[in-house]
Amino acid sequence: MPETYSYASLSAFTQKIFLKMGCSATDALLATKSLLIADLRGVDSHGVARLSGYVRLWEAGRINARPVIKIVHETPSTAVVDGDAGLGLVVAPFAMGVAIDKARQVGTGWVSVKNSNHFGIAGSHAMMALSHDMVGIAMTNASALVAPTFSTERMLGTNPIAVAIPAGSQQPFVADFATTTAANGKLEILQRKNQDTPDGWVQTKTGAASTNANELKNGGALLPLGGDREHGSHKGYALGAIVDIFSAVLSGANYGPWVPPFPAYVPMPENMPGEGIGHFFGAMRIDAFRPPEEFKFHMDTWIRRFKGSTVVEGHERVLIPGEPETEFEKERMQSGIPLLEAVVSDLQQIGEKFDTAL
Amino acid sequence: MPETYSYASLSAFTQKIFLKMGCSATDALLATKSLLIADLRGVDSHGVARLSGYVRLWEAGRINARPVIKIVHETPSTAVVDGDAGLGLVVAPFAMGVAIDKARQVGTGWVSVKNSNHFGIAGSHAMMALSHDMVGIAMTNASALVAPTFSTERMLGTNPIAVAIPAGSQQPFVADFATTTAANGKLEILQRKNQDTPDGWVQTKTGAASTNANELKNGGALLPLGGDREHGSHKGYALGAIVDIFSAVLSGANYGPWVPPFPAYVPMPENMPGEGIGHFFGAMRIDAFRPPEEFKFHMDTWIRRFKGSTVVEGHERVLIPGEPETEFEKERMQSGIPLLEAVVSDLQQIGEKFDTAL
Repeated sequence: MPETYSYASLSAFTQKIFLKMGCSATDALLATKSLLIADLRGVDSHGVARLSGYVRLWEAGRINARPVIKIVHETPSTAVVDGDAGLGLVVAPFAMGVAIDKARQVGTGWVSVKNSNHFGIAGSHAMMALSHDMVGIAMTNASALVAPTFSTERMLGTNPIAVAIPAGSQQPFVADFATTTAANGKLEILQRKNQDTPDGWVQTKTGAASTNANELKNGGALLPLGGDREHGSHKGYALGAIVDIFSAVLSGANYGPWVPPFPAYVPMPENMPGEGIGHFFGAMRIDAFRPPEEFKFHMDTWIRRFKGSTVVEGHERVLIPGEPETEFEKERMQSGIPLLEAVVSDLQQIGEKFDTAL
Repeated sequence: MPETYSYASLSAFTQKIFLKMGCSATDALLATKSLLIADLRGVDSHGVARLSGYVRLWEAGRINARPVIKIVHETPSTAVVDGDAGLGLVVAPFAMGVAIDKARQVGTGWVSVKNSNHFGIAGSHAMMALSHDMVGIAMTNASALVAPTFSTERMLGTNPIAVAIPAGSQQPFVADFATTTAANGKLEILQRKNQDTPDGWVQTKTGAASTNANELKNGGALLPLGGDREHGSHKGYALGAIVDIFSAVLSGANYGPWVPPFPAYVPMPENMPGEGIGHFFGAMRIDAFRPPEEFKFHMDTWIRRFKGSTVVEGHERVLIPGEPETEFEKERMQSGIPLLEAVVSDLQQIGEKFDTAL
């Protein structure tokens, strides 16, 4: 049975841990918000369950708790940000803030980031744009787990894309998805339950079809969205590649098989061509295209028409991207965040290490 | 047996047809280039095979051969373009040109287009950016053939996304794909051969799984990339939705089930909320992020590493997006473009109508 914790208590605990790591008060707050929004929105794999991973990266000297994050190149609508090996949870909001500032000036802002680390859920950063009446875009590369179509090698991360679009009376549209058939977190759930995956999620180390949820441990790979060529995996591969290039080749971060791994015990790749991992952010002012009230009227119409479309028998409703997550957020903000026993004990261990009670 | 025609002869014929429709010489040339690049690159469904479709739309009064295409709203990095019901093949290069001009000024340019028509292949427009040392992005909505996850209704077009990225000594990276498991053109090939589709391409009108290549004629729908929920169709649905919103809700074009159909005999949707179909274009100057020679060095490294990754037995090689199309382009520019008998007879009929020999 999962135990339930209030947002406030998890937030206080997480902030204390980041402070103990040496983060500034502002950074500890920012990082906590970036991390906990995942738990609130039901993306449990990317929330406090990852806190120990960040701690271990910091212990391994791969995360700088006092980064000097700065713009190293810019034009009126673009910037490259050097994250100074800081927490991605802090670097990402900084860079998204730069994108928003530029959009305020010239209509849109686009920021590519190098020398960063894992940034939590992409949607969290894209959603920063919403309150400014802007469209927000966030993506990141990640260490290689995914085989391109026809390859046996892990060459790309699960490289997620998030797009947040404001609406009027309707909830905003928030898409946030890995460019693979299934995110790694989904595999881990099946591993715990000792269940097989559907076809099209993973392949063996020689590239054969597999439904073994433990295939990654055998040298296998996740598959790009589409699964195989016949089902469009070349499109998922292209999407993952675009995320990689925008995040890292534009900025000077590591790309492809050279992206540093999240688990601190996994050795770093050799001959790395860049610095840290890379992200890419965009912000587009709605009124740089048309009056916001017109846009919102039509977004509401769009959302209502899609929600109201006829449902396949046996299913409940047609969803708008972000709708389930928004419902989770409301419910969990009120009733608390359920944590698996393994996650609680993980947090308790961190608490002991830093002399901080959960 | 397909007959083969030289690029020059098809180009001359197509230009003459556009001139007879009343296009200016410049527009006829632009439209011809936009159309024929599809034949050159092996995307036969979107090349001269579509010419009769454009003619019929013009005959139906839905294409304006003498459009006054103009910017109706702009900021330093954005614009909304009104296509004045012109050929998308002409409106798109205009709008992409605006994006490139803005990128030249402030680093990036982003243009949403309303009141346009079918624009050929997305890749053609994205690739305009390459010679300017820019990343090019192009997308468009299209009439509804695709059911969102859990819906029986056709709500989205095949809404393609193209991204063109310059390289150094390597060929550029050019991704160009429908946000469905399979494009409609692939279905048509199977229909001609009387073959079934793989699973995950189409569903019946009640939303049941199907492998009938003629399912669209029975009221069925194409499926978003991923096929079904278990294989990530909600991601393909989100991608198609983003293309729809950027192309039409930002610009004031029609969206969702209200996008005008390409076949002139299909009646227009009722209560249309916008004008024509919508596109979205982006251009990002490489040197707005880092020195182009550095970027190109790393793009070449990226491409070589992916091309060189280990191949699954039974397959020839790992492809870079755009690689097969670039090979087609070289070969067909030299040896000519093979056209199916049905396409040749279609062109001959147009030729007779306009008193122009193929």
